[in-house]
Amino acid sequence: MTEIKTVTAAMIIIGDEILSGRTRDANLNHLSLWLNRMGVQLKEVRVIPDDAITIQNTVNELRVQFDYVFTTGGIGPTHDDITAKNIAKAFGVNFVQSPEALELLNKHYGKEGVSDARLRMTMIPEGATLIKNPVSSAPGFQMENVFVMAGIPVVMQSMLLDLEMRIFGGDKMLSKAVHVFEGESYFADILEDVEKTFPNVSLGSYPFFRNKKYGASFVLRSQIERELDLALAMLVLKIKVMGKECFEGEAAL
Amino acid sequence: MTEIKTVTAAMIIIGDEILSGRTRDANLNHLSLWLNRMGVQLKEVRVIPDDAITIQNTVNELRVQFDYVFTTGGIGPTHDDITAKNIAKAFGVNFVQSPEALELLNKHYGKEGVSDARLRMTMIPEGATLIKNPVSSAPGFQMENVFVMAGIPVVMQSMLLDLEMRIFGGDKMLSKAVHVFEGESYFADILEDVEKTFPNVSLGSYPFFRNKKYGASFVLRSQIERELDLALAMLVLKIKVMGKECFEGEAAL
Repeated sequence: MTEIKTVTAAMIIIGDEILSGRTRDANLNHLSLWLNRMGVQLKEVRVIPDDAITIQNTVNELRVQFDYVFTTGGIGPTHDDITAKNIAKAFGVNFVQSPEALELLNKHYGKEGVSDARLRMTMIPEGATLIKNPVSSAPGFQMENVFVMAGIPVVMQSMLLDLEMRIFGGDKMLSKAVHVFEGESYFADILEDVEKTFPNVSLGSYPFFRNKKYGASFVLRSQIERELDLALAMLVLKIKVMGKECFEGEAAL
Repeated sequence: MTEIKTVTAAMIIIGDEILSGRTRDANLNHLSLWLNRMGVQLKEVRVIPDDAITIQNTVNELRVQFDYVFTTGGIGPTHDDITAKNIAKAFGVNFVQSPEALELLNKHYGKEGVSDARLRMTMIPEGATLIKNPVSSAPGFQMENVFVMAGIPVVMQSMLLDLEMRIFGGDKMLSKAVHVFEGESYFADILEDVEKTFPNVSLGSYPFFRNKKYGASFVLRSQIERELDLALAMLVLKIKVMGKECFEGEAAL
């Protein structure tokens, strides 16, 4: 029996503007791909409003269920930026000024430039450590296994650089793809066979319509390379036995 | 005291491919804007894997919390399409063939074209009613306040046409926007003032960086038009009193 080490994460996207349709989230996809490179599997995402109780409950529910939790949004200088305060409440700790964050803002804006509003961005839960923001200096923070980041995609992405040494992944999820140019339903039986034969491999079927032709991508995912390769070989063989053509594409998560 | 009728919804995006980063969800934004036109506010979104227990628990948790629940994904013909079966389990009802769905597929594919795999798409929870699919005929379904739709955006969008007569909205969320070309933090105090003055208006501040300039959009949202207009007028006035310029933009949710 092969031992597999699986490390999991959840993401909380905080912001009325995503739920209202004003803004399209661009962070989920980026975080997911980054986590995969780190050997961490994103298992659940929640999009929630800028609401104190909802933030507290969601953080507390997910931080005990998953190895890591990442939040985006709500850490700016205005009244609607209530994430940091409610993370402190969720953990039941004080909400305090970080001298380190204050120094970063003083350096970035100059002392006169740090208004009361900007001072909001120096407040973190007691015991949290900062996450560097190379783009606009106002930091995110880590509280235990919860990482609190900005919502603006370029800032959020820059914050991940500082997390590479703080995240400890498990066996990476590997993936391979096979593409066919017929409806997925023709292949339903063999897909099921292959997935049943390899309990450590999951197999997704994703139909597409391209150049006026129906087709499907079959994506095999596993943390065990040997089983992934065997499953791929068996799937390709079964498709050929059916007298159908298929194409092995690049790995796609 | 003005009476406001608020109708709420949650969305469940079901699919390993969204969590793995393979596919970017395109349905959240579309559904959100559609719901708003229907007078329904999207209050929570969850992205979950193709996992039986997770689907059942999530559906049961959200269908009692919100007026409507919409799911996307997992209703195709292959082994990984497990949404319909688990909605039946969530409701504790049998999973049965819909003669109406069978007829639709027979018409679309011809009797010989309806393979065992495609027959999967005729199975629905007992008591559910179908949702028409004008694109590829395999229907979605409604079970009480839960609407189960396809994941492919063009199909999902086409299914919404059939729901316009089944959704009963409340007072629509209205919105107006004011844009400034300076950092949002300068305006933090007046934003907070305006929000406090109008308890039925929420005010979001969304910074941007455009043409090498910092700026921010202030978005006012309310279900009461009169209060929205007053709040907008007060915000614009306060910005002018500060000696700053601002631009009223088109309504943006």
